[in-house]
Order: sequence, then C-alpha cells, then structure tokens
Amino acid sequence: MERVVYLDNSATTRVSDEAARTALRVMTEVYGNPSSLHTMGVEAEREMTRAREAVAERIGAEPEEIYFTSGGTESDNLAVLGAAYARRRTGNRIVTTEIEHPAVENAMRALERDGFEVVRVAPEKDGNIPAERFESAIDAKTVLVSAMHVNNETGAVLPIREVAAIIKRKKAPALFHTDAVQSFCKHPISVKRMGVDLLSLSGHKVHAPKGVGALYVKKGTHLLPRAFGGGQEKDLRPGTEPVPLIAALGAAVRGAPPERETLPKIEGLHGALLEGLSALPEVTARPAPGGSPYILNFSAGRVRAETLLHFLASRGVFVSTGSACGKAKPSHVLSAMGLPAEEIRSALRVSFSAENTEEDVAALLDALRAGLQSLSHT
Amino acid sequence: MERVVYLDNSATTRVSDEAARTALRVMTEVYGNPSSLHTMGVEAEREMTRAREAVAERIGAEPEEIYFTSGGTESDNLAVLGAAYARRRTGNRIVTTEIEHPAVENAMRALERDGFEVVRVAPEKDGNIPAERFESAIDAKTVLVSAMHVNNETGAVLPIREVAAIIKRKKAPALFHTDAVQSFCKHPISVKRMGVDLLSLSGHKVHAPKGVGALYVKKGTHLLPRAFGGGQEKDLRPGTEPVPLIAALGAAVRGAPPERETLPKIEGLHGALLEGLSALPEVTARPAPGGSPYILNFSAGRVRAETLLHFLASRGVFVSTGSACGKAKPSHVLSAMGLPAEEIRSALRVSFSAENTEEDVAALLDALRAGLQSLSHT
Repeated sequence: MERVVYLDNSATTRVSDEAARTALRVMTEVYGNPSSLHTMGVEAEREMTRAREAVAERIGAEPEEIYFTSGGTESDNLAVLGAAYARRRTGNRIVTTEIEHPAVENAMRALERDGFEVVRVAPEKDGNIPAERFESAIDAKTVLVSAMHVNNETGAVLPIREVAAIIKRKKAPALFHTDAVQSFCKHPISVKRMGVDLLSLSGHKVHAPKGVGALYVKKGTHLLPRAFGGGQEKDLRPGTEPVPLIAALGAAVRGAPPERETLPKIEGLHGALLEGLSALPEVTARPAPGGSPYILNFSAGRVRAETLLHFLASRGVFVSTGSACGKAKPSHVLSAMGLPAEEIRSALRVSFSAENTEEDVAALLDALRAGLQSLSHT
Repeated sequence: MERVVYLDNSATTRVSDEAARTALRVMTEVYGNPSSLHTMGVEAEREMTRAREAVAERIGAEPEEIYFTSGGTESDNLAVLGAAYARRRTGNRIVTTEIEHPAVENAMRALERDGFEVVRVAPEKDGNIPAERFESAIDAKTVLVSAMHVNNETGAVLPIREVAAIIKRKKAPALFHTDAVQSFCKHPISVKRMGVDLLSLSGHKVHAPKGVGALYVKKGTHLLPRAFGGGQEKDLRPGTEPVPLIAALGAAVRGAPPERETLPKIEGLHGALLEGLSALPEVTARPAPGGSPYILNFSAGRVRAETLLHFLASRGVFVSTGSACGKAKPSHVLSAMGLPAEEIRSALRVSFSAENTEEDVAALLDALRAGLQSLSHT
C-alpha cells in the first residue's frame, strides 16, 4: 500500500496506540457504569478521575473544574449558551469574533434569535485580530466574551490575555470563554495566565478518539446546563460517561510531549513547507504573523481547492479545504479577512501533528507540483 | 481471580469482542473526519452508513431516519425538548408517565419551568400502566406524548401501540416518543407497528461502547435542534461524529441474535431466579405482569439495598439498587408504585444480558442466601 501522508490533523488525528489500547482495555475490562455503587462502578469512576487529573494538569486547572462532554462542539455550546442564559438578567450583550468555529458562531445565532445582541470583531487581512478591536466592542454591559485561542483555518493566535485584561478594565460583568480546540496540547495553556472562565477542548484533535471533549469551568462559575438527566458531571452534563473515551483522552494527554518540546519541530516543518511553496509562483501562502505553525493556509491560483485536494489524495496526501466542518461551503474565515473569491475557492489547509516528518512535507510539495502542472492545463 | 457474575446489564454491558475490535480498527485505521472531502473522510462516512443501516433495520426504519447521538440521555433530551419547542405554537400540553428515566423526567421539568403543562400518568402497584390511564390524559391539545417502552427498574412493558391509537383517536396534534433504551435488541421493535414518531436507544446497553446512541426520527417530523455547529447529522446533531463508536454500535447490533431467539433463554433465567427467590421468606419479588424478563426487581426485607449490594459485590456478584442513574436517591419508580419506604430502601435490581447463564443465577442465589443470613443478624 502507498504511504499515507496525513496532513489534515486539524480536522482529526489518528488515535495514538496508547490511547487506543486504553480505550480497548476499559471497554472490555473496566466496563462498569461509573454511577453503579458496586466495585465495578468504582473502578470505572477511578479511570475518569485519572483522566480528569491529566486534562486539568495540562491546562493549569483543578480536576473538579473539568467537565467531560462528547466533544468540542458540545463544549462550545455549553460554554456559550450555558453562560449567556445564566447571565441573562445581568445583560444581553455578547462579544465574539467573525472567525469562530461554527459551534460558537451558530450558538451565537441561536442567541440572537432569542434576543441577545451579538457583536462580532473582525480580523485583519492577515487573519489576526488586534486587541484594540475588542477594546471598542466590550462595554460595561457585556455578559459574555467568546474568542478562540488558535483559529482552525489560518493558525492565527488571538490575544486572549489582553482580552481578559480589557474585560477587567471595562468592569464588564462578562464570563470569558475561549475555544482552545486547536491549541490544546500544541501550545502551552494556563487558564489562570490566560484569564479565562471557560475553555473548550476536544479529544480527537490530540490523538484521542472522536466522541469526547472537555469544558474547563472556573470554580464558582455558574452555567445553565443544556442537558437533563441522571446527574452525572455534577448535573452540568448528565448522561452515562463514555469511560473508555475519557480514559483514552487521559492517556493521549499524558502521552503528548510538552508543547515547548514539539513546537520547534513543527516550526521546522512549517518553515520547510513555506519555503517549498514560495518556489511555486501560482501559490499564495498566508501564514498568520505570529501564528501557530501547526496550520498553514494557502491558495493555489486558478485550480479549485477541491480538485487539487482529490489529486493530492489520489497520491496518498491528505489535506483540507478551508476546514472539515464547513464541508463544501466557502470559508467564512477567509471571507472575513476580505480575500477575493478566487483565492477563497482555491484555498487549502495543511495541518501538522507531532507525528509528521520532513518527508511528509517533501511528499506534499512533490504532489502539489505535479497537481498544479497537470490541473492548470485542463 | 474470582469469576465475575455480572447481573447489572440494564446499567451497562460489557462491550462485545466484535464491537471492541471494530472500535479499535476504526480508531487506528479509518480515522478520517467524515466531513473531510478526501478518501479518508469518505471511508469514515462509509463506516457510519453501514452502522446506520444496521440500526435502522433492527427497528424497521429507514437509514435516513436514524440520527446518531452521544447516548440515551441526549436522544431523550433531543426528542422531548426538540419536539416540544418545535410544536410550541400548536399547544403546550404534554403527557408522560411517572416512571420515565431522568433523561425524560428532568427534560419535562425544564419544559414546566418554561411554561409547558406536563401531565404524568401514574403506574399501578404492579408497575404496569393500563392504556386507559393515557386515555384520560391525552386531549386534542396535547403536542407531545413520551412513554418509555420497557421500564428500567421493574421491566414493566408500556402499551405503546395502544397509546399511539389513543393519540390518533383523540386527534391530538402530538408527536409520540418512546424511550426504548431497555428494549432495543431485547424485545422486537417496529417503529411502524408501534406507531411512534421518535424512539431513543443507547449503545452501551447492548454491548456497544458508552458514548453513542441514536434517535429515530420519522421522516417528515420536525424537531428543533439542541446543538449548533458544523452541520453534521443533517444539522439536527452537529459535532464530529464518534465514528469508532458508531461503527461499534453497528457491529453490536449486527451481532445481537434476533430478539425472539434470546427471549426464551432469558425467560428461563428469570423463572429460575423467581423460583429461587420464592424460597427466601424475607424477599419480596415484584415481576411486572407481562413484563420484560430481562429485569427483576425485589426487596430483601430489613436489609438495606446498599449493604446487600456491597456484600454481593464482595463475592463477585454485581447487581444494582433501583437503577444506576439515580445513584443513592430513593427510586421514584417504586415510589410512584406506592411501595412502603422499607421495601424501597431494600430494593435490588437484577438485569440480564444474553451472556448470562443459569450458573450466574445460582451464584446470585447462593450469595444472596449468605448475605441475608449474615446481614439480618447485625
């Protein structure tokens, strides 16, 4: 079989051997219901506790501040909707950005339909959002601010600490949420230094299985639950917990090397890719200044992204158009940056994981050269 | 190690070897994001399609009527809340029962806080609910009826077909939901013959992993989504799908023998247990007349349920108090049946799966005899 060059890690990742082994062990051996009173229930509960500690430690939180969910979307929804409705009597102004994941953006639209006022801060042409733009949006009546940590299409890093300082300075009664799905285990995260009340993360972006995520909820923060049931996760997220997935998330997190150790390697891959792309005249790369090296977005001239993506896939090289979640829709992120329609139509995203190598970058560049040559003549 | 006698299968089940193998294969080999456009995404999508077909076939539905969720609680919540809010302009009366799972009952309470009128039909002392009781509750303004198929504590089977007929006869504009978490793959289900619009099921009760369930939504039925995000599951349940779990659910369903083949065996175990219990004078067994043989509830006289449960567990025999979901709370189901407090305090639930044997029943009876002897003297 052809070698798989998987460069779509911001869409999802291969489950690590350690995480997969853990999931399998829990499925077949520690299969009690953690709500059961007997020893098999207690053992299942213990698996969750270990995972909760691992996730908490990774972001500088306490274990009791971690709530497991079914994934990033549920975490984002619970944070945004749970915070907005909990604060409704205080005010109805919410501040977010134009480049959020649909799990935040579409929750915001639901809040708008329900009478909330949502202000969306726009990015600059390079994908970044300077802190000043939040300065003018956040006022003393803002009850929720939601800004992602690392953008999933461009890699832009948002000024989270500065936004936290603005909220404080303006004396806004706002809860502050960040969607850290694309930075968790990739960039150092400290909920305290970042100054956030709520932080979303997802398992399947960090080599854990799909179907599990978590929401950090700062101690003392009141959210209204979105789900109703048997009282699990302190009644904030009821439903039998997916113990094998939670344990696998813990294993993936414990197995992920410290962020600062991996970053130089990823910066190397990012640099090599950028350099390779610069030799292709039809390609426009758009690394966000100061952004995450895990993600690189570029346009391939007149070749439509989907056509090029299928050509690359036929050679065993897997990348993404804009993002996986948008599927065939034109990217709202690149639109917000003011890019011309042709550049948006031809935009591809490469996203790395610690498992990628320089050979992967070389294979992508080879396939890309071949693709541009063969497709631009058709 | 001591042999494990697992008789808590209504709380959760051991993941079958075939389901576990499937989950592992998908985690490590078919790890693409089903929303990704490339071949790895398409392969992941194909795994979901196969599972959707298996679930649909099992309940006599079409594949496009199956929506995957994170489990029974999410399915119940989406059905109850999604239907009530979609029908809000039509009316605000809802009919349910006093013996529903907390995922339905607590969703109903949320609807009451939001202005809906919820009428709860009570069970008789034997746990059953005669169809006539629904007759007087359902009127021409009822917009939702939710009644479980098999009760999770007593095994009582509710008259679903009759309730569907009552809704029709009364010309109620109601959607009809049934929580079939305890009957799926155990009792034959045909959504058409039952006459339901919505049916909830859970993976981990049928030897699939925890973290996956499904909601049957009859074609043409409009529900308001509870979650907002990237458009997955036709926008009704967005969020990256837990493909390994969904594929494992498909494998578990395909691997489950036809309900009518397994039922005689389970009836045998149920009968043997009842006979054994009848020889213990301090025990009151309460099989629901005409109920499911998969579940048997009984009280053990003056010994508290939790004490006896731990004694049994110390001998490798695992059963449940009332239900796992209620944890330490007194059972609302047994309360609704009007049982005296002492009987509720000492109530235990035995729940079978196709994996159980007559030796398991004998081991339980042995341990029970020993427990009653040693504990009733303390």
